[in-house]
Amino acid sequence: MNKNNGRVYNFSAGPSMLPLEVMENVAEQLTNYMGCGQSVMEMSHRSKEFEAIIEDAEKNLRNLMDIPENYKVLFLQGGGTLQFSMVPINLLKKSKKADYIVTGTWAKKAAAEAKKFGDIKIVASSEDTTFSYIPKVKKEDFRADADYIHITFNNTIYGTHFGYIPETGDIPLVADMSSCILSEKIDVTKFGLIYAGAQKNIAPAGVTIVIIREDLIGFAPAETPTYLDYKVHAENGSMYNTPPCFTIYVAGEVFKHILKNGGIDPLNKLDVEKAGRLYKFIDESKLYNCPVQEDSRSLMNVVFITGDADLDKKFIAEAKAAGLVNLGGHRSIGGMRASIYNAMPMEGVDALIAFMKKFEEENAK
Amino acid sequence: MNKNNGRVYNFSAGPSMLPLEVMENVAEQLTNYMGCGQSVMEMSHRSKEFEAIIEDAEKNLRNLMDIPENYKVLFLQGGGTLQFSMVPINLLKKSKKADYIVTGTWAKKAAAEAKKFGDIKIVASSEDTTFSYIPKVKKEDFRADADYIHITFNNTIYGTHFGYIPETGDIPLVADMSSCILSEKIDVTKFGLIYAGAQKNIAPAGVTIVIIREDLIGFAPAETPTYLDYKVHAENGSMYNTPPCFTIYVAGEVFKHILKNGGIDPLNKLDVEKAGRLYKFIDESKLYNCPVQEDSRSLMNVVFITGDADLDKKFIAEAKAAGLVNLGGHRSIGGMRASIYNAMPMEGVDALIAFMKKFEEENAK
Ligand SMILES: Cc1ncc(COP(=O)(O)O)c(C=O)c1O
Ligand SMILES: Cc1ncc(COP(=O)(O)O)c(C=O)c1O
Ligand SMILES: [Mg+2]
Ligand SMILES: [Mg+2]
Ligand SMILES: [Mg+2]
Ligand SMILES: [Mg+2]
Repeated sequence: MNKNNGRVYNFSAGPSMLPLEVMENVAEQLTNYMGCGQSVMEMSHRSKEFEAIIEDAEKNLRNLMDIPENYKVLFLQGGGTLQFSMVPINLLKKSKKADYIVTGTWAKKAAAEAKKFGDIKIVASSEDTTFSYIPKVKKEDFRADADYIHITFNNTIYGTHFGYIPETGDIPLVADMSSCILSEKIDVTKFGLIYAGAQKNIAPAGVTIVIIREDLIGFAPAETPTYLDYKVHAENGSMYNTPPCFTIYVAGEVFKHILKNGGIDPLNKLDVEKAGRLYKFIDESKLYNCPVQEDSRSLMNVVFITGDADLDKKFIAEAKAAGLVNLGGHRSIGGMRASIYNAMPMEGVDALIAFMKKFEEENAK
Repeated sequence: MNKNNGRVYNFSAGPSMLPLEVMENVAEQLTNYMGCGQSVMEMSHRSKEFEAIIEDAEKNLRNLMDIPENYKVLFLQGGGTLQFSMVPINLLKKSKKADYIVTGTWAKKAAAEAKKFGDIKIVASSEDTTFSYIPKVKKEDFRADADYIHITFNNTIYGTHFGYIPETGDIPLVADMSSCILSEKIDVTKFGLIYAGAQKNIAPAGVTIVIIREDLIGFAPAETPTYLDYKVHAENGSMYNTPPCFTIYVAGEVFKHILKNGGIDPLNKLDVEKAGRLYKFIDESKLYNCPVQEDSRSLMNVVFITGDADLDKKFIAEAKAAGLVNLGGHRSIGGMRASIYNAMPMEGVDALIAFMKKFEEENAK
């Protein structure tokens, strides 16, 4: 337990920690938002109160990420998973070919889903080393007539992150940024489409942000389910149907909170410092190891192992008892994973390192 | 304003009022749910805390609606709108024919969407009288080889409601119950599939309840987008991907609240009393009229007009100033609509009637 009202440090890969200040404010306004006599949970999405909420959320996100005017920002339901389908359905517009770089479980799922809709080529994969690094890919590696290239910018399960933006020339680059959005300044103009489930750095689960260049909108086949057509959402300001209003509101509050604290730069500085301390400790320790190649390491998901599955289990259980929860690796690979998203304070990382040190002493061989 | 902490009476058609007691409890637990040190907004969907939340929500809904064992209960994203697509994609399994009864805007949209996927016949429509009644349909009116029949049980915009359940024999009956679920006891076994967006009687927008008979699951074509296959969700307890956890939690809290107060029967009694008082007042008044045929009137959405569009506008504005908000009819038809869902207390209806009386006196011709 820490000093934040008996709250634990939650290292979950998502849904995950949100800024306490934002949640306290949301709680305070829960039954009566800004004196309007209604909860945001109860508000008509056509009311002027909610219209201001969604417009501000978009404006503040544009401001935070420097999103150019020729990109639409959409707030959608269905998670990253629905984007695995919507991307190929909408973007396979000409050759029906797309190239995928497979750097983990989510990238693999995205590629497998796309195969339902077109000719998908895996141009690079790091599966041979259990996804322990990000392959270096050059423009020549892509098919010249591909409709788009897809990458998973941060790999939540394997703890890797693209240290570079692949050069794709005129071919639109699509990136799943679910687990790293808002953790670093990125040049949006280098991408045709960016998507991100909110449940790591932004908000509770239930809304997915899509940032899409306007010229890519409008190519879904006629028989596309209406909800899966970007054009429908783009033309209706994400209000073709009832949006997940409350979740969008919390996202907007997080955007305001980040802006108030200086935007992405100071946040990234803190993220670099947090991850840096943790990786340094792991690298120097005898007990713990990080299987990820140094140039490919994620700032958000720090994966480590002791090399002894039983000891890993003991670690996770004792950490939990010490108020450091959800340190288990993804159920598909085991080991440990500390997800240290934007809302994880430095104190949480320091508490984790202190615990790791103590555990190492107690379990020295 | 009423006495509930400066809250207004909100007659919105959805999202709409939620029980104050539930919201107060949610607010109290917002940063630390039941002492676990995390907000439900931050909880891993794989945590034992959230698993208990979603299991309880399902169990309590089964209990409230007497849902038989051979039906699955799913918590999905995408709203009623995504169900307009998922129903035909999954249920057009043999003849690829389905029959729709068109009783309003949503029914029409559902039918139009289904036409992308099969041979859809409108077997009855009340569009000729601006949807002022529910057509009486007999078994002989349906195509004998139809894969399913679709109805909109309560028509949110036109204020109508099916006073009967159409006899369809062996053909599965599908009902959109978005705007009436939990307002009356219904016999689930008469339906093959029931769906309902949560944002009227259940929870904030962002989750849709699907109740589906097991034998109807598993027939989506191979190229169906993964998220749109009921089988995927059914086999994974609505956790194939990250569900909208917080919204499901609030839904579960509403289910508990209804159970605590005796289940659906007392709620229905109150709903009948609320709607009854309002319709009686409208029918007896000289100024106001309800365009809906008596046997087709909704308990949830009470539509009325003065017959003078300017006077309607004045009514809506003055009502708002008096703390009775969102009384405007749907933007497609104008007039007035008082949505009096489960969470609208009798006092709200009485306050509305008192206001209507006063407005009528002041505006007598
Ligand atoms: C990088 C990435 N992409 C996609 C997903 C899937 O998102 P969702 O569960 O919202 O469908 C996840 C889930 O954790 C993820 O980490
Ligand atoms: C009866 C009915 N069905 C479907 C919908 C559409 O639901 P959503 O906006 O969640 O897609 C509505 C919306 O109000 C409705 O009233
Ligand atoms: Mg991964
Ligand atoms: Mg080491
Ligand atoms: Mg309608
Ligand atoms: Mg009258």
